[in-house]
Amino acid sequence: MRRSIATVCLSGSLAGKMDAAAAAGFDGLEIFEPDLVSSETSPEEIRARADRLGLSLDLYQPFRDFEGVREAELLDNLRRAEARFAVMRRLGIDTVLVCSNVGTATVDSDEVSAAQLRRLGDLADGFGIRVAFEALAWGRYIDDYRRAWRVVERADHPAVGVCLDSFHILSRGHDPAAIEDIPGEKIFFVQLADAPYLSMDVLSWSRHHRLFPGEGDFDLPDFVRRVMSAGYRGPLSLEVFNDTFRQTDTARTATHALRSLVWLEDQASKSLTGTGLQQLPALEPPSDLDFVEIKAENTDAVEEVLGQLGLTFLGQHRTKPVRLWASGQARVVLNEQHARDLEPHVAAIGVQVSEPYDVEARARALAVAGVVRRAAAGEQRLAGFSAPGGLEVFLGENSYGDEPAWVQEFQHGQPPALRAGRQSDANVTGVDHVNLVHTWDDQDEAVLFYTSVLGLTATPATEVASPHGLVRSRVMRTAAGRIRLPLNVAPAVSTAYPEHVAFSCGDIFGVAAGARVRGMRFLPVPNNYYDDLVARFHLDQATVDRLREYQLLYDRDEHGTFLHFYTRRIGRMFFEIVQRSDDYDGYGAANAHVRLAAQARLEP
Amino acid sequence: MRRSIATVCLSGSLAGKMDAAAAAGFDGLEIFEPDLVSSETSPEEIRARADRLGLSLDLYQPFRDFEGVREAELLDNLRRAEARFAVMRRLGIDTVLVCSNVGTATVDSDEVSAAQLRRLGDLADGFGIRVAFEALAWGRYIDDYRRAWRVVERADHPAVGVCLDSFHILSRGHDPAAIEDIPGEKIFFVQLADAPYLSMDVLSWSRHHRLFPGEGDFDLPDFVRRVMSAGYRGPLSLEVFNDTFRQTDTARTATHALRSLVWLEDQASKSLTGTGLQQLPALEPPSDLDFVEIKAENTDAVEEVLGQLGLTFLGQHRTKPVRLWASGQARVVLNEQHARDLEPHVAAIGVQVSEPYDVEARARALAVAGVVRRAAAGEQRLAGFSAPGGLEVFLGENSYGDEPAWVQEFQHGQPPALRAGRQSDANVTGVDHVNLVHTWDDQDEAVLFYTSVLGLTATPATEVASPHGLVRSRVMRTAAGRIRLPLNVAPAVSTAYPEHVAFSCGDIFGVAAGARVRGMRFLPVPNNYYDDLVARFHLDQATVDRLREYQLLYDRDEHGTFLHFYTRRIGRMFFEIVQRSDDYDGYGAANAHVRLAAQARLEP
Repeated sequence: MRRSIATVCLSGSLAGKMDAAAAAGFDGLEIFEPDLVSSETSPEEIRARADRLGLSLDLYQPFRDFEGVREAELLDNLRRAEARFAVMRRLGIDTVLVCSNVGTATVDSDEVSAAQLRRLGDLADGFGIRVAFEALAWGRYIDDYRRAWRVVERADHPAVGVCLDSFHILSRGHDPAAIEDIPGEKIFFVQLADAPYLSMDVLSWSRHHRLFPGEGDFDLPDFVRRVMSAGYRGPLSLEVFNDTFRQTDTARTATHALRSLVWLEDQASKSLTGTGLQQLPALEPPSDLDFVEIKAENTDAVEEVLGQLGLTFLGQHRTKPVRLWASGQARVVLNEQHARDLEPHVAAIGVQVSEPYDVEARARALAVAGVVRRAAAGEQRLAGFSAPGGLEVFLGENSYGDEPAWVQEFQHGQPPALRAGRQSDANVTGVDHVNLVHTWDDQDEAVLFYTSVLGLTATPATEVASPHGLVRSRVMRTAAGRIRLPLNVAPAVSTAYPEHVAFSCGDIFGVAAGARVRGMRFLPVPNNYYDDLVARFHLDQATVDRLREYQLLYDRDEHGTFLHFYTRRIGRMFFEIVQRSDDYDGYGAANAHVRLAAQARLEP
Repeated sequence: MRRSIATVCLSGSLAGKMDAAAAAGFDGLEIFEPDLVSSETSPEEIRARADRLGLSLDLYQPFRDFEGVREAELLDNLRRAEARFAVMRRLGIDTVLVCSNVGTATVDSDEVSAAQLRRLGDLADGFGIRVAFEALAWGRYIDDYRRAWRVVERADHPAVGVCLDSFHILSRGHDPAAIEDIPGEKIFFVQLADAPYLSMDVLSWSRHHRLFPGEGDFDLPDFVRRVMSAGYRGPLSLEVFNDTFRQTDTARTATHALRSLVWLEDQASKSLTGTGLQQLPALEPPSDLDFVEIKAENTDAVEEVLGQLGLTFLGQHRTKPVRLWASGQARVVLNEQHARDLEPHVAAIGVQVSEPYDVEARARALAVAGVVRRAAAGEQRLAGFSAPGGLEVFLGENSYGDEPAWVQEFQHGQPPALRAGRQSDANVTGVDHVNLVHTWDDQDEAVLFYTSVLGLTATPATEVASPHGLVRSRVMRTAAGRIRLPLNVAPAVSTAYPEHVAFSCGDIFGVAAGARVRGMRFLPVPNNYYDDLVARFHLDQATVDRLREYQLLYDRDEHGTFLHFYTRRIGRMFFEIVQRSDDYDGYGAANAHVRLAAQARLEP
C-alpha cells in the first residue's frame, strides 16, 4: 500500500515537511491548505520538489462548507471551488477533500446535498479532479460516514466519492462494518488517526488529541481491514492533529509517523491475503527481562546499595569496565564505559525473546535506530536499539530461567568490601519493573516503540500528585507481567525527576532487615502515613508498627496486597523493593505522593 | 470575611504551604488529607505552626464514600471516620468535609443517607466536630446541592450541615438561587473555584482546569452574594485543582490566590450591605493608552523603524536616557536606562485613568507589587506596578486626547538622521493593541491582574498555528477597545517568541507607501497568500494586486474589514500597522499563520 501523510502532522515549513516525509520513506502527501497559503514556494515549485523527492501529491485539503446551502451560496461556493481547482491543477493534485458542511448549511436533505455534489463533480471533471466527500464528526447535518455515502451514492457522479477518516468514524462510536458495503472504487481516500478515549467535545478532541496509530484506543487494524475488504487500494494516509507533534522535530516525527503506518499495515494484514499490506517478521512479546544496565562515570555508590540489598557481585567483564551484580533473575550491569560526567541512571535494558533475529529485522523494518556496541571475539553480540527518550534496548535469547550465556563474560575483578552483616535467606528474586522518565513530547512515541517493536501493551494513563505537579504515567507490559515499564512524564518544572529499578522478592521484611544490618539508608516514611494506614485499611497496630519499623509502604486492593520500600536517591535514580501478594497487579500508586514528598524533602 | 485556602491549591510541602498562605495574608487553611499523610510534621506540630502563623485550621478534607451504603459497610465507614476524627482533634480542626458517595453507594434514598449522616453526626459530636456534607458534581446518587440540603435537613442533626462548592454547583449548570433557602447556620462551609466553560467530563474538568475567581467563566460574585444572603458568615475558602498552580512557586501562587479572593469580595459586595465583605476603591477602566515603553541597551534600530513608519521624534527626557516618539495618540518611549544587554522589547505601558490614586490604592489592596522609578524634582511621578510576566504598568491621568503633561519633560536631544522621503499625509493615529507574550504558567495570573486592577475584560481563549506549535491567546480589553492587550502563550519550544506593538491608522496604503519610500523592510508575504485571497473573498485582481504591492494582509467578517502589515523583527519585538473598517473587532487571526510562517523563515 502507498503510505501518505498530511502536512499538518508535521512542524516547520512546507518544504521542510516534504523533505522529512520523503526521507522517512513516505510515498505521498496530503497538502493542508494553510501550509500552502503560508508558503513562499509556488505551486509549480512544490510540484517539482515532490517529483524530485519521489513523492506523489495525493490530496488537497480541506474544502469546507460546500453543500446543504441555498442556490446563491452554492454559486459562490462553486466559484470558490473553481479557484481551488485551478491551484490544484498547478500542483498536479487530482483529489480534493470536501468536508460535510459545518458552518453554513441550512438545508438538511440528502437530495439537495447530492445534487450540489453532482454539480461540484461536473466542475471538478473539467479539471480532471475527483471529489472525496467526508462526514465530519461535527458536521451540521451530515456527521456519519454512512450518510455521506448515501449522499455520494445518490449524487451518482464518477468524479464524486467518499473519504473515510478513522477519527470521524470511531470517535463517534459509529460501527465501521458498513464500510464494507461501499464499493472500493467509490472510496476515494482513507485518512487514519488514532486517539485516546476522552470525554470531551469531539472538535477539541480531534484538533488537539489525535495520535498516530498504535498510540491510542481505536481499533485501527480492524478499520483498515474493512477498507481493504471493500476493495480500496489507494493510499493509507495519516492525518493527525496533535499539539505535541506540531512542536517536535520534523524529521523525528516523520519517522515516528511512518513507524505507526508500518505497524498498522502489519497488524491489519493478519487474516487478510492478497491485499498488498506489508507484513513484518512475526512478533512474540519478550518472555523475560535479561538485565538492567546502570551507567555512570563512577558506579561505586550503586554497588554499595546493591550489596546492601543482598545482590551478589558476579564479576567484571573481561574486556570492558563493566561489572555484574545479580540475585535470582535480577541482573544489574554497571557500566563505566563512555560515561564521563554521567551520574548513575538507567541506560539500557535487555529483554529475552525466542527469535532475536526476527525482532531485530522487525525493528529495522520499523525504522528504529540501532545501537552498536563493540564485542570482542568470543563475546556474545546483542542486537540493540535506541528507544524514544534514550534508553537502549538489547535483545537476548530466552534462557528459560537459567543463566544467560553472556554472564560467562563476567568472571574477573574483585568484589567490593561491604559492611559485614548477617546472611539472610531473604533475597531479591527478580526485577519487578523499571520506571522510566519521559518528557511530554516523547511519551507517545515511546508507547508506539514498545508496542510495535516488542509487542508490549500500554495501560491507560494515570497520574499521581508530586509536590511540584502531576506525574503522568502509562505502563508498557507483557500480559504475564514479566516485563513492566512504567513511562512517566514529570512536571515541567522538575528537571531531575529520577528513574528507578524495582526488585521483586518473596520476603520483604527479610530483605529490609538484611539491608538495615548492612547499613542501607532507607527513604524515610512519615509517621502520619502510618497513622493514616490504620484508618484507611483497619490494620492492627502491631502490623502497622512492623511496617513502620522497616519504613515499608502498604497497599491493598480487591486482588491482593503490595508491600514496598525505597532506597535514597543515587544520582538520577534509586531502587525500590516490592512484594506482591495474591493477584495484586498495581504499583502502589496510592503511596506515590508519599514517596514523592519524601524525595522532595531530602533530595530537592 | 475570613479568607481561607485549601492546601491542594499550592505546590511544595505542607509546612511551606502554611508559611506561604500566612505570608500572603490568608486567615485560614483547609487541610487536604494527602498533604497531611505525606508530611513529616505531626498533627500537633501542624497545629502549633498554624497558631504561630496566625492561621486557623478551618476544614479537614475530604472524607469520601460514607453514606448510601448497607449496614456492614456503614460500620466500617464509621470506624474510618472515628480514626479521622481522632486526627482532627490532634489538629484542632472542628469541621470535616464529607463528599457525597461516588464509589460505594448502593442505596439511592434520601432517608437512608439522612439516617446515616445522623449517625455520623452523633459520632462527630463526641469529638466536638461538625460534618459539612457536599454534593460532588459526579456523586453516584447525590450530585446536586439541593438534594444534599434535603438530606441534611432530613438528618436534622446539629452537627450536620452542608458545604457549598461553587464548582460542583455551577459546572453542572445548577441554579444557585436555592442557596438562599438554606438557613445560614446550616451552611457549614463555602468553597470557591472558577473555571472556563469546557465541554469535557466534569471529573477531569474539576481535577485539572479549575481557576481562581476572576479567571474563568463562572459568575462567582453572584454565588457569594447568595451565600451571604442566606446568612453564611464563615470563611470564604479557595479550593482550586489546577495542573499549573500545582507547579508554580508557592509564595507567588498564594499571593495570586489571595488577590482573587479580595477581588471577589469586592465584586460580591456591590448591592449588598452589612455583610462584612471588604470593598476596594472604585474601579473605572482606563480611558486610553498613555504610552508604550520599549527598552533596550540600544534603541537605534527601533528609532529607525518608527521614523520609517512616520512617527516623529519629540525629544529626549531631560534627566534620563529616554526618548519619545509620537504620532497622533501613539506615544512610544524608548528607554536605554538600566538596559545593559537587553534587546528591544516591550517593557511597560502607561494607561490613562480618571483617578490614578484610587487605582494605585486598589492595586495595593490587591497585593500587587509596585514599581519604583526615580523622578527628579518637577517631573511627574507615575505610579507603576509589575504585571505577571514582567510588564510594568503605569497610571497616568486622563488627558482627554490632549498631550499628557509628562510629554513636556521630553524637550532635548537631536532627532536621528533619516533617509529623506516624501512627506505623507497618512499617519499613525494611535496604538491599536499591544501583543504580549506569557509563559504557560503566568497567563491565568495575568488575566486576573488586568481584570482586578484595571477592570479590563478577557475574551475567550483562541489559538493559531505557528510552524512550531499552537499559540494560545486571550485578549484583555476595555469595552470601547481603546486598550487591547492580547496575551499569548507561545509553544514550549519557542524560546524567543516576539511581542509586538500594533499602530492604528486611517490610510494604511499611505502609511505603507511612506514607509517604503523611507526604506522600511516589510515582512514579506508569499504570493500563495494573495492567490488564496482571490479564492477566499472573491476580491478582484486589481485589489489583490494593490495589497500585494504593499505586502498587506486582508481579513473580513460580517462586521467589517481589516488591513494590516508587519515590520521585520527588531530584537524581541516588531511593529504592526492596522486599519479597521466599519465594526471589525478582531486581529486578523486568519492571517496569523502566514505571519508566523514568514517570521519562522526569516527570523528563526
